[in-house]
Amino acid sequence: MKIICTQEKFKKAILNLERVVSKQNTLPILNNILFEVEKGIFKLSATNLEIGVVIKISAKIEKEGKITIPAKLIGNFITNLPPSGEDNITLEVVDQNLKIKSGHSKAIIKGLPADDFPLIPQKTSDFLINIPSFILKRAITKIITCVGYNETRQELTGVNVIFNPQEIYLAATDSFRLAESQLKLNEENINKEVYETFVKSKNNIIIPSSTLLELSRIIQNETEEGMVKVAIENSQIFFDLEGIKIVSRLINGKYPEYKNIIPKEFKTVIKGEKELIQGVIKMASVFTSGRSGEIGIKINSDEKKVLFEAKSVEVGENSSELKLDIEGPSQEIIFNSKYLLDGLNTLNTSQIALLINSGSSPAALREAGDEKGILAKDYIYIIMPIKN
Amino acid sequence: MKIICTQEKFKKAILNLERVVSKQNTLPILNNILFEVEKGIFKLSATNLEIGVVIKISAKIEKEGKITIPAKLIGNFITNLPPSGEDNITLEVVDQNLKIKSGHSKAIIKGLPADDFPLIPQKTSDFLINIPSFILKRAITKIITCVGYNETRQELTGVNVIFNPQEIYLAATDSFRLAESQLKLNEENINKEVYETFVKSKNNIIIPSSTLLELSRIIQNETEEGMVKVAIENSQIFFDLEGIKIVSRLINGKYPEYKNIIPKEFKTVIKGEKELIQGVIKMASVFTSGRSGEIGIKINSDEKKVLFEAKSVEVGENSSELKLDIEGPSQEIIFNSKYLLDGLNTLNTSQIALLINSGSSPAALREAGDEKGILAKDYIYIIMPIKN
Repeated sequence: MKIICTQEKFKKAILNLERVVSKQNTLPILNNILFEVEKGIFKLSATNLEIGVVIKISAKIEKEGKITIPAKLIGNFITNLPPSGEDNITLEVVDQNLKIKSGHSKAIIKGLPADDFPLIPQKTSDFLINIPSFILKRAITKIITCVGYNETRQELTGVNVIFNPQEIYLAATDSFRLAESQLKLNEENINKEVYETFVKSKNNIIIPSSTLLELSRIIQNETEEGMVKVAIENSQIFFDLEGIKIVSRLINGKYPEYKNIIPKEFKTVIKGEKELIQGVIKMASVFTSGRSGEIGIKINSDEKKVLFEAKSVEVGENSSELKLDIEGPSQEIIFNSKYLLDGLNTLNTSQIALLINSGSSPAALREAGDEKGILAKDYIYIIMPIKN
Repeated sequence: MKIICTQEKFKKAILNLERVVSKQNTLPILNNILFEVEKGIFKLSATNLEIGVVIKISAKIEKEGKITIPAKLIGNFITNLPPSGEDNITLEVVDQNLKIKSGHSKAIIKGLPADDFPLIPQKTSDFLINIPSFILKRAITKIITCVGYNETRQELTGVNVIFNPQEIYLAATDSFRLAESQLKLNEENINKEVYETFVKSKNNIIIPSSTLLELSRIIQNETEEGMVKVAIENSQIFFDLEGIKIVSRLINGKYPEYKNIIPKEFKTVIKGEKELIQGVIKMASVFTSGRSGEIGIKINSDEKKVLFEAKSVEVGENSSELKLDIEGPSQEIIFNSKYLLDGLNTLNTSQIALLINSGSSPAALREAGDEKGILAKDYIYIIMPIKN
């Protein structure tokens, strides 16, 4: 194998692949990146057996061949390479080594045979949909906090995705709280016939949360204007981001039917500045004790005041009163302060809303649009109160 | 005790004191901050028995008294206090509790009796010198990397300070490398008679490195324009930063006479861009093996080229050639790459110099002034080569 490509493209690819490489090196070759030149195409691959990433790089190809190289080593090398006038990098396999040359720097890195590298599954079917990458990233980022880490319920360690004809729902829950993002699909997003068939046969899947985290990290490094193509086949999901292919296994199992838990309506709606409410709850959380970290919220509808209270035998007590926008009747409700803070952290608007039915039924957080305080419908965070 | 002061001043004081509070709570009261109103003065104190900090805050005093309060708790409270119109905070001791009120927030925090709080030593002598705080901070930051953590040689865990009539030297070494900062004293910096007497009797002390780290952190939070007054008595050092008093024990023992190690002159001087040299060494450090992390530097004086080389049996090999400004004869020298990188990190100029006498004698790093590349004399980093 011998190729010449630009430092910049090579560096970007290596840094994207380095993250995928498994941290637990049960199999040494999983620490490596596969370098491959075949049929005139130069591509780099990494996998941790759950997720695989393949990146094509345009290059001047002088000789075909392949090798695998430790990801950490090549990542460190390329990060610290001094800028040279040329800006090109030459990669050549000699014996079981990769020879690298760029400007006045060169290196020889010992590799492992490419034949031992695990096969990364290839897609054979058509793509279902095509989503703007920054919208997908935003949806993932919001819900990922709620993923459960209970190994006994493997399905909760993933993200549930429900495909409907005109929208997709992404949801995560650890059974104490639940977050759901909605993605609207336009006609131009849909590969019509294929998608309609898919929605009818199997429209409910569970994606490992680590796969979506990796996907959203790769999106961050790429331009925000890109699109992500999605295909599903044989318990595998495929993402395609202009030159970067990601494949991941799906989680087997049935995700809980969470839709029934989300109330259709709420009696009382409080709106206010996110930072102010966050500050008051953080302050109160210091005065809570034990794992439940109870914080009491008393909404006085007549006086338009909300009282946040916490008390601990060891520490002392704390209360703050905020003047907030209140619609609906007065309420008293108790939350776990950690879950409340986690939920507030997922909201990206400066104005937010807390929606309540009663002290014993699920409450919700939503983003409030800055204009006229209209609530955004594309995201909801559900939190169970602690019963008094 | 009952006082009213501004949120801002109180918050700044608490955050400065919080850091001092010991992390190891062998004595629970060392986790606390002492609140004290005596003779019309409101002051807050914290200590970890090695270092003590006392901060005076201007306040409206309604009643004298004292209490101690957990630092972490009050720090968390004040950080998250919502901004109120008033901006004042009321602190009142009721029974063994501190009642706090600010705007629409209030808290009761359980305290411990002030009588159990350790006494923080008070200075009785005059100040020796008065140094611009940002200059002192810069000098500390540069040398602190070299402090040793070998418990068997307690003196190396501190910073050596030598007081001369017209300058001060701060030095640290772990016996593998050494850093020395020089501070010039002007007449207006010196409390003449007291300082002259001190310099004659005892001009060489060892300050715990943690004390200087804390001092430089407090300087960061304060205005850069301030001055630091310094006094020394009875194995204690006192710093006074406009309202903030710091006292620390000194380390007993004799610091190694390091001055002889610093060469007076160097035969070969390489100058170049710090980032470029740093990148090349970082890259090479990946290809070193074992704890010594050997990196070879070959200076070719005739061709004005410097070759950086590293080789490891497990990983492979790497070399980079840089065109740098070279004065003096060719040299070959081997360093521990970690020590070289640590040294480069302490330099704040974009151009730096590596100074060498031979492959077996101490080498040095210095900052190179951006104009005409004149070397700064107020700081030197000495590194021992690895003998071939």
